[in-house]
Amino acid sequence: MPDRNLFETSVDSLAGDDHRMRAWLAMVGCFTSVERSLRRRFNQAFRSSLPRYDVLTALAQFPDGLTMGQLASKLMVSKGNITGVVRRLQQNNYVRQSTSAEDRRVQLVTLTPGGRQLWDRMHEEYRSVIGEVLADLSDEDSLALSGKLSQAQEKIDEFLQRNDASQ
Amino acid sequence: MPDRNLFETSVDSLAGDDHRMRAWLAMVGCFTSVERSLRRRFNQAFRSSLPRYDVLTALAQFPDGLTMGQLASKLMVSKGNITGVVRRLQQNNYVRQSTSAEDRRVQLVTLTPGGRQLWDRMHEEYRSVIGEVLADLSDEDSLALSGKLSQAQEKIDEFLQRNDASQ
Repeated sequence: MPDRNLFETSVDSLAGDDHRMRAWLAMVGCFTSVERSLRRRFNQAFRSSLPRYDVLTALAQFPDGLTMGQLASKLMVSKGNITGVVRRLQQNNYVRQSTSAEDRRVQLVTLTPGGRQLWDRMHEEYRSVIGEVLADLSDEDSLALSGKLSQAQEKIDEFLQRNDASQ
Repeated sequence: MPDRNLFETSVDSLAGDDHRMRAWLAMVGCFTSVERSLRRRFNQAFRSSLPRYDVLTALAQFPDGLTMGQLASKLMVSKGNITGVVRRLQQNNYVRQSTSAEDRRVQLVTLTPGGRQLWDRMHEEYRSVIGEVLADLSDEDSLALSGKLSQAQEKIDEFLQRNDASQ
């Protein structure tokens, strides 16, 4: 039996009525377990980190390219977090930066054909890990979990919108 | 209306029957949104990163101390990920390393009283952010979400156990 992780044991110390914190810690626990499996497999298969896959995924969705600011915003991180990742991907010729045809002051990051191939392989691996790790979850359970999470996402988005507007 | 993030738009491209991947991406979306709020607030309030809080949280739960290996395992990261965090916490006198009374070859990391105070303040802030971000989620919805996530965690743990055993 593996040791329970921090996010599982933290739940024990919560007051019985702290339902939101309990839901959040349950989410952190699941997320952390699955992410660790992904991270391990990506390290074994590609010697690659997950932020690298995330950057490639965003660029695969937007073949016309994204500015560094747009890329950071899609990934919900700061530009500083992805500068190094993008630079290394560029050195390895998986992405390139070029001037926007519409506005010469704007630099766009796009996937190269090699970057697209790498992403295809990574994406297959990603789906395969998720399929394995969540294999014991039935279709019905997966659907119910998605439903509850989408509901939470809506409420979170409403909060973020109010909060961003008030700043 | 804020831009939809990568994990929300990724869902659009999934096959209708890819229920596990859909559930996972919904989880990543929620997790990323909430974590960003936590990260911002921790940066504003403490000039501190979340891994720093996580390390303090683990040590607060284990007042007798943890080895670096135990600490990494509780946080589900590699030792390399926390070495720098622990070193800086030690430089700031929030944690200390000392020799185990039971086995002089073992070094244990423990919280100092100052570290415990810092953790208390951080933990209050953490709970307050979660309470705000998830404020629109009812008790019933939070409970239902926790239930579905705990069920998923069980299935994930079963997979991890089988997987660790086969390696």
